[in-house]
Amino acid sequence: MEKAPFLTVDSVIFSFDESALKLLLVKRAIDPFNDQWSLPGGMVAGAKGNTLEAIARDKLMIKSGVDVDYIEQVFTTGNDQRDPRGWSVSVVYSALIPYQAAHHNADWVADAAWFKVDELASMRLAFDHQDIIQVALERLRQKSLYSIVAGYALPAPFTLSQLQHIHEVILGKPIQAKSFRRRIEQADLLEPAGEIQLDRGRPAALFRMKPAARKYTFVRNLDG
Amino acid sequence: MEKAPFLTVDSVIFSFDESALKLLLVKRAIDPFNDQWSLPGGMVAGAKGNTLEAIARDKLMIKSGVDVDYIEQVFTTGNDQRDPRGWSVSVVYSALIPYQAAHHNADWVADAAWFKVDELASMRLAFDHQDIIQVALERLRQKSLYSIVAGYALPAPFTLSQLQHIHEVILGKPIQAKSFRRRIEQADLLEPAGEIQLDRGRPAALFRMKPAARKYTFVRNLDG
Repeated sequence: MEKAPFLTVDSVIFSFDESALKLLLVKRAIDPFNDQWSLPGGMVAGAKGNTLEAIARDKLMIKSGVDVDYIEQVFTTGNDQRDPRGWSVSVVYSALIPYQAAHHNADWVADAAWFKVDELASMRLAFDHQDIIQVALERLRQKSLYSIVAGYALPAPFTLSQLQHIHEVILGKPIQAKSFRRRIEQADLLEPAGEIQLDRGRPAALFRMKPAARKYTFVRNLDG
Repeated sequence: MEKAPFLTVDSVIFSFDESALKLLLVKRAIDPFNDQWSLPGGMVAGAKGNTLEAIARDKLMIKSGVDVDYIEQVFTTGNDQRDPRGWSVSVVYSALIPYQAAHHNADWVADAAWFKVDELASMRLAFDHQDIIQVALERLRQKSLYSIVAGYALPAPFTLSQLQHIHEVILGKPIQAKSFRRRIEQADLLEPAGEIQLDRGRPAALFRMKPAARKYTFVRNLDG
C-alpha cells in the first residue's frame, strides 16, 4: 500500500427485546455506502479517548445514543478490499446489554435502530459489516454454551427461567432446564436477589450477576 | 488525538528447543527503544500484503528470517501510552512452530534470537511488548489445556510422549499420561505415521497432526 490505512472501530451490540435477540445498527448519511445500515463506529484518527475501547464506546454513544459500561474486543479485520476508498482496518468490539432505546444524534447518521438478528441475514449492510456480525454472533453463541453471559442482557433481578430463555434464543434451540441449572450452580456467578410471586405456584427465586462474573473465562483442565 | 495513530503488527512466535519453550525476539537498531529487544513486527503503512495477516508474516520474515505458514490473531492493543511518539495501535499475531534458526537480514534490526520464556520476565523489552507476550502466553496455555495445539511445535512424526512433554513444558507442570492420551483420542486430531523402535521395550507409535486440526476449537455444550 502507498499510504497509511484507515483505522476504525466498530461495535456489535446485542440486546434482548420482544422475545428476540436484537442488534444495533445506524444508517449512514455519508459516502461510501450512503443510506445503508452499518455498525455504529468510526474513524480512530481525531477521536476522543485514551484507548481503543474508550473510542469505541464514545463512537457508539455519539452515533446511537447507546451507553455501555463494558465492551469486549472480538477481533480486528484489515485488508485492501473492505472499503472502496482503499486499505482499511477495523477493531471490532461487542457487548450484550439490557435493552435501551437508540436514537441518532450526529449529523452524519440518518437513523439508529435495533434489528432482530434473524432478519439481518437478508439485509445488505455497509462494508464487510455482515461478515463482522456473523463472527461476533458466533462468539456470543460459543460463550452462551459455556458461560452465563446472557445474564447481561437482563435487567436485574431476574429468574433462572428468564435466563434460560435468553440462552435458548441466542442458541436457537431449547436446552434442558435441569442440566442448565446444574451448570449455573457450578459456575457460581449469580447472587440471590429476593424472590417473586408469579401467578400461581411457589415463588420464584430472583438473581443478579456477581460483579466478578465479568472476568469469567471457562478453562477445562487437560489433567483434571 | 490530533493525527492518525501509528498502526503496527507484532508477532509472538513460540517454539520448543533444548527442552524449553522459547520465544522469538529481534533487537532494535533504531529509536525509540534503540538497542532493546522487541517482538518482530512493524508499521502497516507502506507494507507489502493484502491483509493484516500477510503483512505480519512478511514483517516476521524480513526481521527474523522465520517463515510461518499459519499465524493467528490474538488481540489488538491501542492507546496513547505505549509508544513515546504518540497514539499507537498494534494488531498482535501468534504462532507455535517447529524450531527454525533465526537471523536478522534488515538494516534496522541488530539481531534476532530465541529466548527461553522462563528468562523473559526479567528482561526489559521495547514498548509494551512484555505485556503483549504475557497475553499471548496465557492464550497458549489455555489452548494447551483443551486442545493439542502443542503438536505444531513438533516436527512430524512424533510420539505421544513427546507431545505430552511439550504440553507439560507449556503448562509448567506434569500431566497424567492416561488422562492425556484419552483426551488426545477423543479429540481425533492425529493420524498414524508409522512407529519407532526406541532403546528398549515395545516400538512407539508415531503421529502427525491432521490438516483439519488447525480449525479445531473447543466447544462444551450447555445442554450436552
